[in-house]
Amino acid sequence: MNPELGVCYYPEHWSEEMWATDAARMVETGLSWVRIGEFAWSRIEPTPDDLHFDWLDRAIEVLGTAGLKVVLGTPTATPPRWMLEKHPDMLAVDAQGQLRKFGSRRHYCFSHQGYIAECTRIVRIMGERYGRNPLVAAWQIDNEYGCHDTTVSYSQPALRGFQRWLANQYGSVDALNEAWGNVFWSMEYASFDQIDLPNLTVTEPNPAHVLAFRRFSSDQVVAFNKAQVDVLRPLTNAPLLHNYMGRILDFDHFKVGADLDIATWDSYPIGFLSDRLEADEAHKKAFLQQGDPDMQAFHHDLYRAVGRGRWWVMEQQPGPVNWAPYNPAPLPGMVRLWSLEAVAHGAEVVSYFRWRQAPFAQEQMHAGLLTPNNKPAPALAEARQTADDLAKLGALTQTQADVAILFDYASDWAWAAQPQGVEFNYFRLVFSTYRALRRAGLSVDFISATGALQSGYKLILAPGLATLDGDLEHRLTEGCDLAILGPRTGAITRDFQIPISGRPGLSGLDCEVDLVESLPPNVQRKVEGGGAAQHWVDRLSGDAPDLLTFCDRTPALKGENGLWYLAGFPDEALWDRIVAMAAQKVDLPLHSMPDGLRRRETEQHFFLVNYTTAPVLWDGHKIAACDVTILRKDRHDQS
Amino acid sequence: MNPELGVCYYPEHWSEEMWATDAARMVETGLSWVRIGEFAWSRIEPTPDDLHFDWLDRAIEVLGTAGLKVVLGTPTATPPRWMLEKHPDMLAVDAQGQLRKFGSRRHYCFSHQGYIAECTRIVRIMGERYGRNPLVAAWQIDNEYGCHDTTVSYSQPALRGFQRWLANQYGSVDALNEAWGNVFWSMEYASFDQIDLPNLTVTEPNPAHVLAFRRFSSDQVVAFNKAQVDVLRPLTNAPLLHNYMGRILDFDHFKVGADLDIATWDSYPIGFLSDRLEADEAHKKAFLQQGDPDMQAFHHDLYRAVGRGRWWVMEQQPGPVNWAPYNPAPLPGMVRLWSLEAVAHGAEVVSYFRWRQAPFAQEQMHAGLLTPNNKPAPALAEARQTADDLAKLGALTQTQADVAILFDYASDWAWAAQPQGVEFNYFRLVFSTYRALRRAGLSVDFISATGALQSGYKLILAPGLATLDGDLEHRLTEGCDLAILGPRTGAITRDFQIPISGRPGLSGLDCEVDLVESLPPNVQRKVEGGGAAQHWVDRLSGDAPDLLTFCDRTPALKGENGLWYLAGFPDEALWDRIVAMAAQKVDLPLHSMPDGLRRRETEQHFFLVNYTTAPVLWDGHKIAACDVTILRKDRHDQS
Amino acid sequence: MNPELGVCYYPEHWSEEMWATDAARMVETGLSWVRIGEFAWSRIEPTPDDLHFDWLDRAIEVLGTAGLKVVLGTPTATPPRWMLEKHPDMLAVDAQGQLRKFGSRRHYCFSHQGYIAECTRIVRIMGERYGRNPLVAAWQIDNEYGCHDTTVSYSQPALRGFQRWLANQYGSVDALNEAWGNVFWSMEYASFDQIDLPNLTVTEPNPAHVLAFRRFSSDQVVAFNKAQVDVLRPLTNAPLLHNYMGRILDFDHFKVGADLDIATWDSYPIGFLSDRLEADEAHKKAFLQQGDPDMQAFHHDLYRAVGRGRWWVMEQQPGPVNWAPYNPAPLPGMVRLWSLEAVAHGAEVVSYFRWRQAPFAQEQMHAGLLTPNNKPAPALAEARQTADDLAKLGALTQTQADVAILFDYASDWAWAAQPQGVEFNYFRLVFSTYRALRRAGLSVDFISATGALQSGYKLILAPGLATLDGDLEHRLTEGCDLAILGPRTGAITRDFQIPISGRPGLSGLDCEVDLVESLPPNVQRKVEGGGAAQHWVDRLSGDAPDLLTFCDRTPALKGENGLWYLAGFPDEALWDRIVAMAAQKVDLPLHSMPDGLRRRETEQHFFLVNYTTAPVLWDGHKIAACDVTILRKDRHDQS
Ligand SMILES: [Zn+2]
Ligand SMILES: [Zn+2]
Ligand SMILES: [Zn+2]
Repeated sequence: MNPELGVCYYPEHWSEEMWATDAARMVETGLSWVRIGEFAWSRIEPTPDDLHFDWLDRAIEVLGTAGLKVVLGTPTATPPRWMLEKHPDMLAVDAQGQLRKFGSRRHYCFSHQGYIAECTRIVRIMGERYGRNPLVAAWQIDNEYGCHDTTVSYSQPALRGFQRWLANQYGSVDALNEAWGNVFWSMEYASFDQIDLPNLTVTEPNPAHVLAFRRFSSDQVVAFNKAQVDVLRPLTNAPLLHNYMGRILDFDHFKVGADLDIATWDSYPIGFLSDRLEADEAHKKAFLQQGDPDMQAFHHDLYRAVGRGRWWVMEQQPGPVNWAPYNPAPLPGMVRLWSLEAVAHGAEVVSYFRWRQAPFAQEQMHAGLLTPNNKPAPALAEARQTADDLAKLGALTQTQADVAILFDYASDWAWAAQPQGVEFNYFRLVFSTYRALRRAGLSVDFISATGALQSGYKLILAPGLATLDGDLEHRLTEGCDLAILGPRTGAITRDFQIPISGRPGLSGLDCEVDLVESLPPNVQRKVEGGGAAQHWVDRLSGDAPDLLTFCDRTPALKGENGLWYLAGFPDEALWDRIVAMAAQKVDLPLHSMPDGLRRRETEQHFFLVNYTTAPVLWDGHKIAACDVTILRKDRHDQS
Repeated sequence: MNPELGVCYYPEHWSEEMWATDAARMVETGLSWVRIGEFAWSRIEPTPDDLHFDWLDRAIEVLGTAGLKVVLGTPTATPPRWMLEKHPDMLAVDAQGQLRKFGSRRHYCFSHQGYIAECTRIVRIMGERYGRNPLVAAWQIDNEYGCHDTTVSYSQPALRGFQRWLANQYGSVDALNEAWGNVFWSMEYASFDQIDLPNLTVTEPNPAHVLAFRRFSSDQVVAFNKAQVDVLRPLTNAPLLHNYMGRILDFDHFKVGADLDIATWDSYPIGFLSDRLEADEAHKKAFLQQGDPDMQAFHHDLYRAVGRGRWWVMEQQPGPVNWAPYNPAPLPGMVRLWSLEAVAHGAEVVSYFRWRQAPFAQEQMHAGLLTPNNKPAPALAEARQTADDLAKLGALTQTQADVAILFDYASDWAWAAQPQGVEFNYFRLVFSTYRALRRAGLSVDFISATGALQSGYKLILAPGLATLDGDLEHRLTEGCDLAILGPRTGAITRDFQIPISGRPGLSGLDCEVDLVESLPPNVQRKVEGGGAAQHWVDRLSGDAPDLLTFCDRTPALKGENGLWYLAGFPDEALWDRIVAMAAQKVDLPLHSMPDGLRRRETEQHFFLVNYTTAPVLWDGHKIAACDVTILRKDRHDQS
Repeated sequence: MNPELGVCYYPEHWSEEMWATDAARMVETGLSWVRIGEFAWSRIEPTPDDLHFDWLDRAIEVLGTAGLKVVLGTPTATPPRWMLEKHPDMLAVDAQGQLRKFGSRRHYCFSHQGYIAECTRIVRIMGERYGRNPLVAAWQIDNEYGCHDTTVSYSQPALRGFQRWLANQYGSVDALNEAWGNVFWSMEYASFDQIDLPNLTVTEPNPAHVLAFRRFSSDQVVAFNKAQVDVLRPLTNAPLLHNYMGRILDFDHFKVGADLDIATWDSYPIGFLSDRLEADEAHKKAFLQQGDPDMQAFHHDLYRAVGRGRWWVMEQQPGPVNWAPYNPAPLPGMVRLWSLEAVAHGAEVVSYFRWRQAPFAQEQMHAGLLTPNNKPAPALAEARQTADDLAKLGALTQTQADVAILFDYASDWAWAAQPQGVEFNYFRLVFSTYRALRRAGLSVDFISATGALQSGYKLILAPGLATLDGDLEHRLTEGCDLAILGPRTGAITRDFQIPISGRPGLSGLDCEVDLVESLPPNVQRKVEGGGAAQHWVDRLSGDAPDLLTFCDRTPALKGENGLWYLAGFPDEALWDRIVAMAAQKVDLPLHSMPDGLRRRETEQHFFLVNYTTAPVLWDGHKIAACDVTILRKDRHDQS
């Protein structure tokens, strides 16, 4: 696979005379792909049923004939203002019961069937018009599901949809009462239509109620997406994709991804460091203009799994954005670094957002490859340089990693419903796991709890995996030499009950969680020999050998038969010990990486990526600040 | 009185086959009491008027014949879902105007007369059925009034009730306008039905308006409770009680308590340290797994007063809970320590919450004496050990303390309505007073501002007591040798006006507050000779002698005729000086206690309770970490 | 001009017998003015059309004949309760969609035409009654527009008013769509009545939409005020004024002021330090009981501009207030210091708020010159002393300063709509500019972007001025020898677009902003030679010479032709360098002032004001703590 570059473009924002010049300049910059159309509904259909495709026909023609492959977006993330007059109840409602009004984007509730019908209508029309157009090389469906906290809606359509979904899941309301333990506070229902959405309750609602609503809400996204897929499939052979976001876990991306051909995501390293990452002030300062050294790679690896191997960066941050608490500029070299790092993780395309900074509306302070008045922004030259790098690089092939993390969206919903301690959340735990593996120089795969069994791993980690049901133990023991579970793995059933048969309930591991503790940030539980647990501790019993113990002699890690259970949320030192123990156990070579230097292996290369502001000398190679060193395996034994 | 142990149990949560085994195991653990039924309305009356008492009959029979005395709860804290279809407007409304929906508990407004009628109906039926059942040895009415901020409701029934209450209090709207000073911002009313609830005003409402609404809201709780009492009294001779919470001051517990026979409260030392106590980080860390050393004792002493000498711990934390920001486990020994400490303060019964951890619903992460799958949790052995301790201890009698704190719920409402400085609140001030007395090794009583005159004290403190009206000065001078008032004592009338006759307005003390200051946390006002005021300073004038002065020569403490007025909120050093001065004045022996060691005297014993994680040597006695040393007075002169 | 003193008084709060005594005591204290009536509507018109002016007639008579000049307030900030029954929809609505209820003050929406008609009705009646009364020497219209966040309302009347305002501004909805760039996210409207208020949108609304709504909201205040002015003008020759607040920028005070004769403001130095100023903890602690040394002067200078030279302090803090997070007392001397400082900046009158502390309602903890029970509060003697000082001082004349700051309310609205970084706001930037000039001992004028051209300045600064349109560049180059713009100056058009012609777009300065960065508080961009930018950085290009550069060689300050552009938000060290460079350039003498000592020059005097708690020796003069030294120019060359 030869990676390519692309860009996001909005012909409707610029006078038509500029299109051809823009297209030529894109090609000259080394770009091969251009995404258009995803916010253009008001120009395609200014009033109901009054369709204006002429401009879009010409835009596709101009871009395509210049040599660019077009990704055409369905415009359903931004219904025009008239849509609200047809469907006044289509807006989502927030947890406080407030209507989320028109005036920005994503102003729809996933449960509104009337709006879904409008979406399939416009998508059918577009599919019929452009489905066989050779210039349209891919389709993007909607835009950034879940962004702006839009997965979950407390609207009346959502309520009715939830009641139907529950009836379908549980069959009888008695079964639901039993499954949720509604006897607890006399919360038993006599019919499904008595069940309300789990917001605005006096104190916290039943976590089983919340988790069911979160599953329902995820399913509504899957169904919304599938409705468009079902329309487009017969009308085009071009691949269908969606652009996911960073650290948005509100719907099951594996399920949405199963209906699509390619996963893409929108990578904003500096914005995400600022607005959605737990890290101390020193770390955020050190990587302020580079982004967190593991955040991009994490999502690259995750979306590679969601896309079953096929994935892109659809929107690559090219400069300061407008939406984070602080919006500094990337350091010189970082746009190229991010692009090459994506390629190292298997991106087929890296597409910059956006071609030219808009001088108007919400994102006018969001940089592009060009300034609003058409001067080159710093990223333009870096895109050009990246294109040259890719030309030199040639074909690149991904290989299965030795190590995988089992990732499960529903676990995030579960622990958000009942965090037990304010410092605990699923992403934070999984990300700390991923960081630990990367500090050891490992390439990492993500796998899902469902789908085809994935085997051949030396090591699989499943931290915080809420529910171990079905054949999951079997899949783990078949899939790898050593599986590390915990903390908080197998802690609940799918209906959010503590399994009476014991937690985590593994037949091969004699180990049970009897009691759980959450801790404030200033308290750690030290482990004999070094490292500590923080935030969370499972207190373990059972006959499986203690591999590590806390200073009070209680088990910190127990294991047997290729199954380990980890009792706490490890700090960095404890993670490093556990990774080292596991590596020794399964004969996994480690490469200790300094802070900010990361390593990724492909079939043909070793990539060394330096997120720091100083050159790093490592294993005999000097990697410049904000730079990437690519070593061909045929010329290097090891890196 | 010989203290006993008990436990909270939910037969409706477990299969009927388990009941007898559970009962036997309770008895074996040394428990004498079992509380049941308080959340079981949906099982007693699954649909309106369809009563199912058979299971409850059998549960009482099984538990009672095993030797346990049953506390039967009225189930009114958890009305079933069908209740909302009968009374759609029964839900409370929060200060933002949001309905507080079904799906957890305490989903009712205290002002809804229809719901009160439903409560008296079900309570009458239960009283008629079980009132003379010898196995039912006590009745608990409702559960944890005020928990989850449920005392105050901004519903329409509350509005109408408030208008009636005002008409009753003030007779004419002109009287109300005058009493509230409504002329101030042209807020005068022409009729009672023009008066709205004091939420959502443009800027803060009149504090007189807020205080009246808080008095009304408290009275609604009193009336709600009394409605059930009035039904039960003729039907049973068993004592009636309610289980209050920690640091919930939204209603007047003395008034609710006046209608009941026993006060009980729910003691969660670790949860309360985490979620409702002002303390610095070091203190919270030092006592993370033990709870604050004075918080339990404070409530024991307060509820002893509310119960007019008769009180229990109805729910004793046995392990980690689910509801605090952080939920660590108690250190070994703490469950026994908390139990024996309660006994030292006069608890008739200490009842653990709960027998077995529920595997479902909101509190599934709340530990019990048993794990969800019936293994012993750590607290089970400590309960057993406590039972043995109690057997050895024999009878124990409370005596009146030398020192009392005058406690007044309405003062909390007043200062919440007009805090004047964000660091100032009533509980914080009173608790700092209590701590100071405990650091001096004193046993402390609480007394109320109303009820029978309580005399014989050497020292009474009345910090922050909002209103000195009626015969309160007389009661103080008759009640003790020395009364210490201030800061902010006698600062307002019952209608929230500054008394024109002067603050605090004591005839025996020539001292007046002319001006008041509130301070940020980083500023203290040093007192000559040591210590400082913080948060709050009253500037005093008058001819009473200055007993202490601030470094700027203004009075810090003035006093004469057995009345002292304290000008500021003391820090620990200043409190210790004041307590020492007072003790010398009234010949009160002090015992300086180290941090975390506390002392309590009964007729027969000295109790020394060590909340720290290290043994303490004190007065020749070594008290182990997390342990209690009980000295019999007949063998020790002094401790 | 000979400055005078005054006081705010509420005859309706006190028994009529007290009025004459109060009036005599005011005169004895040296006060010449008394403001009354502004909250008295419920006493003037207790029920609709039932007018009670007798008491007000007598109050004016008693006060006036005692020798006091009366300022009569229109009572429109506190409509009586019956007004809501006539106009149930007159209440404002907050951004969350909540009605802002009756029960305090300012409970009206500026867009409610029915309420405006009620206001003009009562004002006409009062004007007809008192307009020619010689005892009424001035009229105050309403009270503290915008206080309690009341400028902006999301009510239905506001919505309809906004739609009309937009139609008027833009003519056609297509023009509006174009101006706002509504194509961006398909936000295009087909008619003005489709445009909603910009609250509760899914993610942020279009900043052009927000800015338009903020302009509209400001215009509603201007219109509301003008409606009363238009009624009063024909009925009286007395000057009309309004009392503005501190750091409330929600409406254009220049526009309101253009319809009035005198600007007044309400100066609460200690409250404002506590509740509305960005400053570190050490600074807030050092000036806790004095107020920020530049905050009062800033507003004095600003309101001198708003009043076109004529301005008062209408409410001067005399002691602790009730409304700030912390409310300590002023240090002895501060009330006099604040009064004399106001005079130094040109105040015609300094009026204390209030005569006697009210014992009731919301502000009962707000000190006055007297305590609630009529004892002298500390400020009484300081007022008397100030009166003596003023008698000695004699006439005082303001002169135009050498330095001016161009101040623009709309820039605050713009940057609140799109701050780009959470640390950035307009007031903070302008205030840091003002502080820098004051540290250099300069007297400062404020000028507006509109109105008559003001010339003769050596230096004009225009930091953060959102839009450079019209003849503003011409006005700057004509108005001064050197204009310093930036950061974020000329960054948007009036419709909140980035000017395609470049930012800031000055014909005389070859300098353009290509990219913008916002920074977290722990990051600075160091400048070669000392100082740093913080919070905000504009990256500049262009041929104008670099006068300062950042350590990465990018320009920090560029300038030519008497126009400088500053690339970042300077820290104190950088500001001091820039002020020094500018002073050298334009031959402006500087006086380096120690922390807390400030200097102000009039025609006749140098005022040296010491906000610190220690005496300061400066330029041969010793200024005592919390004291003012006034030097007559005829006896001193320089200070
Ligand atoms: Zn190598
Ligand atoms: Zn002893
Ligand atoms: Zn001099």
